[in-house]
Amino acid sequence: MIALIMAGGVGTRFWPLSRTSKPKQFLNIASGRSMIQMTVDRLLPKIAMEDIYVVTGASQVALTQEHLPDMPRENIIVEPFGMNTAPCIALSASYLQRKYTPEDVMVVLPADHLIKDQEGFLASLDAGELAALEENLVTFGIQPNYPATGYGYIEGGAELHPGMFNVKQFKEKPDQQRAIEFLTSGNFYWNSGMFMWKIDTILAAFAAHLPQVMPVLDSINAAWDDQGFDADFAVPYAQMPKLPIDIGIMERAEKRVVIPVNYGWSDVGSWKALYDISETDDNNNVLQADVQCIDSSGCYVRADKAVALIGAKDMIVIDTPDALLVADMKQSEAVKKIVDSLKARKSTLI
Amino acid sequence: MIALIMAGGVGTRFWPLSRTSKPKQFLNIASGRSMIQMTVDRLLPKIAMEDIYVVTGASQVALTQEHLPDMPRENIIVEPFGMNTAPCIALSASYLQRKYTPEDVMVVLPADHLIKDQEGFLASLDAGELAALEENLVTFGIQPNYPATGYGYIEGGAELHPGMFNVKQFKEKPDQQRAIEFLTSGNFYWNSGMFMWKIDTILAAFAAHLPQVMPVLDSINAAWDDQGFDADFAVPYAQMPKLPIDIGIMERAEKRVVIPVNYGWSDVGSWKALYDISETDDNNNVLQADVQCIDSSGCYVRADKAVALIGAKDMIVIDTPDALLVADMKQSEAVKKIVDSLKARKSTLI
Repeated sequence: MIALIMAGGVGTRFWPLSRTSKPKQFLNIASGRSMIQMTVDRLLPKIAMEDIYVVTGASQVALTQEHLPDMPRENIIVEPFGMNTAPCIALSASYLQRKYTPEDVMVVLPADHLIKDQEGFLASLDAGELAALEENLVTFGIQPNYPATGYGYIEGGAELHPGMFNVKQFKEKPDQQRAIEFLTSGNFYWNSGMFMWKIDTILAAFAAHLPQVMPVLDSINAAWDDQGFDADFAVPYAQMPKLPIDIGIMERAEKRVVIPVNYGWSDVGSWKALYDISETDDNNNVLQADVQCIDSSGCYVRADKAVALIGAKDMIVIDTPDALLVADMKQSEAVKKIVDSLKARKSTLI
Repeated sequence: MIALIMAGGVGTRFWPLSRTSKPKQFLNIASGRSMIQMTVDRLLPKIAMEDIYVVTGASQVALTQEHLPDMPRENIIVEPFGMNTAPCIALSASYLQRKYTPEDVMVVLPADHLIKDQEGFLASLDAGELAALEENLVTFGIQPNYPATGYGYIEGGAELHPGMFNVKQFKEKPDQQRAIEFLTSGNFYWNSGMFMWKIDTILAAFAAHLPQVMPVLDSINAAWDDQGFDADFAVPYAQMPKLPIDIGIMERAEKRVVIPVNYGWSDVGSWKALYDISETDDNNNVLQADVQCIDSSGCYVRADKAVALIGAKDMIVIDTPDALLVADMKQSEAVKKIVDSLKARKSTLI
């Protein structure tokens, strides 16, 4: 089995810790290891380092090498610029096709998700492999535990094998009412953005549903033939359709399988999400700094210096050398607005 | 007229901005000028720099010279260690006696108070001088505008001259009920810690009410005779009674006058007090930093870097290179507890 880790995200939700030059996947937000390191660590009992690949942007190659010093340089597939997940996956499948057989199975994983139950995760890869070898496009659907409106959903249909279902349809992020219906129906799962398929299955799916990708892949393969693995293919790559894999392929394909999983997954999409999965102290605080508290609770604090909290309730406090965030926990999504506003005024703080 | 500015305070209430090495009087908390500079600036239309003196601790002489480069070094009276205001004033009066006549009038002012109405302040000095020349110990009493429990009070009695009253008694900080009574009675004033008297009047008061001070002053004078103005008099000074001037002299003396004043005085005793006297923006924020706000109001922010506030209500945010304070405005007095706790663990952050 081959693993492809997608690490192209620019991660603005963890500002001021995350920056364009240091996106979320390179942050130690959940442990002493960075998200991308944790993603690799999770795979190593099953997949050797030489069969683990990262696809990322040109500006993040050095950072990737720094975080994954044992990964061969040839295992870092470099997008000249971000083009969304369909082109990214087409490019990577094409790259892997040159090194492996068409029958080899690849799992596609985002670099910035957390999974608590590693055993459960590895077991799901075994299940996925079975379905992938039967020519399916496999998705891993997270069993919802609350009516989330922040994720897309996958509706499961007929049971193909025990614990594996045909996909009836993909659903965009629902409103609260629909989310409650999805939760109670029992056969809707969060779309985790994790996939599995044989190399030839996904390339055939591109040929069928996004055929304009194929001549671009031919040009890129020609560049690789001529210049080697670090060939410059920016010109053809710019012709790719800028689509997510869900819309470009998954929603259009026929043989799709969802494997429901329940292994403590989180995409850690906000400071609040990180707080929610962190261990708290007796006052429900998560204090990643030298913090003195008086009458403070429900806070997430991160700083490289001494912090005093007095009467702070449900606050996020993130200190970095050049920027400080103080936010109400309930409004932690608004960090995105701060980043947008910094972008608009061409600030160097993003 | 001579001015004596008492600048020995160690100011823990503005932590983390104020430190042992940089107390409140040396901070620019209310303007581009430090509190001690503002105190001198306020006097200069009436008193020449050569007649303005600062009494401070040995560790703060360099800082005083830095803030007041035009002040002659001989005008900085150095306490070998802090001993409270009675010894500090006895020492200073004795020092001034060597340079001036016994009939000269000195005004005693804390270095870290704010006064908005400079004209009103200077006019009160003229009034005070009149009372001082009549052998009175003069105090300036702030007309209360709310039932403060954080100040001592002075009860005014018979009117001596227009706008000048004999002092009936000094009152310790009252509880809320008493404070309301004081406010409604109309003849109680906050004890501002500002005084005025002739040099011989205060020295005679020491002789009468704290006679043990006199032989200490004799020893110190002998040291000055021998070694000049920067003589070492630590040994005799340690024998001084560690009392505030209010308890040591003012409460015991007979000829005492209070001049009620109403010139926008504040002792700026906390971050909240500073917020209260600062100009706010449309959202009632005082933002002394590059701050982006979303849904935030009633906040005081001070930082040398970018700050983002999201959903922050009535918060104090003070950032310094090695320590950060995030506090509920209503609990800003608890900063003292943080400093006490830092002291207890021998932190270098105070």
